Amino acid sequence: MIRNRRGVPLVISAPSGGGKTTLCRRLMEELGGIEFSVSHTTRASRGEEVNGVDYHFVGSEQFQKRIDGDEFLEWATVHGNYYGTDLASAQDRLEAGQDVLFDIDIQGGHQIADRLSDAVLIFILPPNMEVLEERLRGRGTDSDEAIAKRLKAAEDEIRSATGYTHWIVNDQLESALGELKSIVVEQRIRRRDRVEVIASVLGG
Amino acid sequence: MIRNRRGVPLVISAPSGGGKTTLCRRLMEELGGIEFSVSHTTRASRGEEVNGVDYHFVGSEQFQKRIDGDEFLEWATVHGNYYGTDLASAQDRLEAGQDVLFDIDIQGGHQIADRLSDAVLIFILPPNMEVLEERLRGRGTDSDEAIAKRLKAAEDEIRSATGYTHWIVNDQLESALGELKSIVVEQRIRRRDRVEVIASVLGG
Repeated sequence: MIRNRRGVPLVISAPSGGGKTTLCRRLMEELGGIEFSVSHTTRASRGEEVNGVDYHFVGSEQFQKRIDGDEFLEWATVHGNYYGTDLASAQDRLEAGQDVLFDIDIQGGHQIADRLSDAVLIFILPPNMEVLEERLRGRGTDSDEAIAKRLKAAEDEIRSATGYTHWIVNDQLESALGELKSIVVEQRIRRRDRVEVIASVLGG
Repeated sequence: MIRNRRGVPLVISAPSGGGKTTLCRRLMEELGGIEFSVSHTTRASRGEEVNGVDYHFVGSEQFQKRIDGDEFLEWATVHGNYYGTDLASAQDRLEAGQDVLFDIDIQGGHQIADRLSDAVLIFILPPNMEVLEERLRGRGTDSDEAIAKRLKAAEDEIRSATGYTHWIVNDQLESALGELKSIVVEQRIRRRDRVEVIASVLGG
């Protein structure tokens, strides 16, 4: 087993209903070696959310201290709550050769790309807006108005994802998953430690 | 089907006995859409070689004219014969979105990379020198002396392939083939025409 010189920072974004959650779960299960980046947030935990697994739940003061100390890879406010990604823990894992998956919106993805120049930016799209609408209706959680708002937001996101390096149209799940895996495998090959490869082949 | 903006220039090199021929054939059969770049040469055709399929067999004068006209992506002499890759026909196919496979030695690969900045340079290695020696002996075509010479050449090649972007250790054929496919699939995703993707999703 040849070590990677550095883990792959995988930024994955999609409009809601794009199928991102399923794809990320399958990717992590089937490839292995990918750690999910757990965000910090000031919002209260909901239902069965577990601290340290779904989010790191922290107070506003602690969050602000981290902003002031430039400790976030990216951060944002949504509906008055703060969300952020810890820089040091991501860097530590990447340096150790561990791939890290950032499940994040496009703005956050662009912020991460600014600080991690080797980040791979993957954007997952629905095949068309009709399918996206069906998926959102299928959830049965949103009103017509909320769905219309989400569709408009999705369109804006698709137009603003131009900085993303890899665009995957999630028409067939298995095919989209195959593409996602190829991106990670390619990165791992590219990052192999050449000195180790030569030593292992030539018997250094 | 989303078109690629530009085809992938795939440069594949390996020490002899590295398993390159089998891997390239399987890759082309199983992925499709990859054209093999046929070299020009001044050497005489052998056995069942077909002009235009195995090589473009040309005279020395015609070859020299092409060198003078800067018509080669790369060229070299081996045992007094000239070998070269036509620039225009490769460029035409790449511009048309067709992937092109260049099966070539490391020196030729580096020359191609100088002229095609988006070339992907793949180097295929044997798992170790003992396996390489077995493979060479298994062919039953080379003397002990010739095998010793090839092994030394392989070692030099491995040490000089540092410019190659992707190193694949061909230990298990299927696993090496999977890696090779991932590299091509990743490139195709990266090169997708964004304007076409957006139009197809949003119904341009």
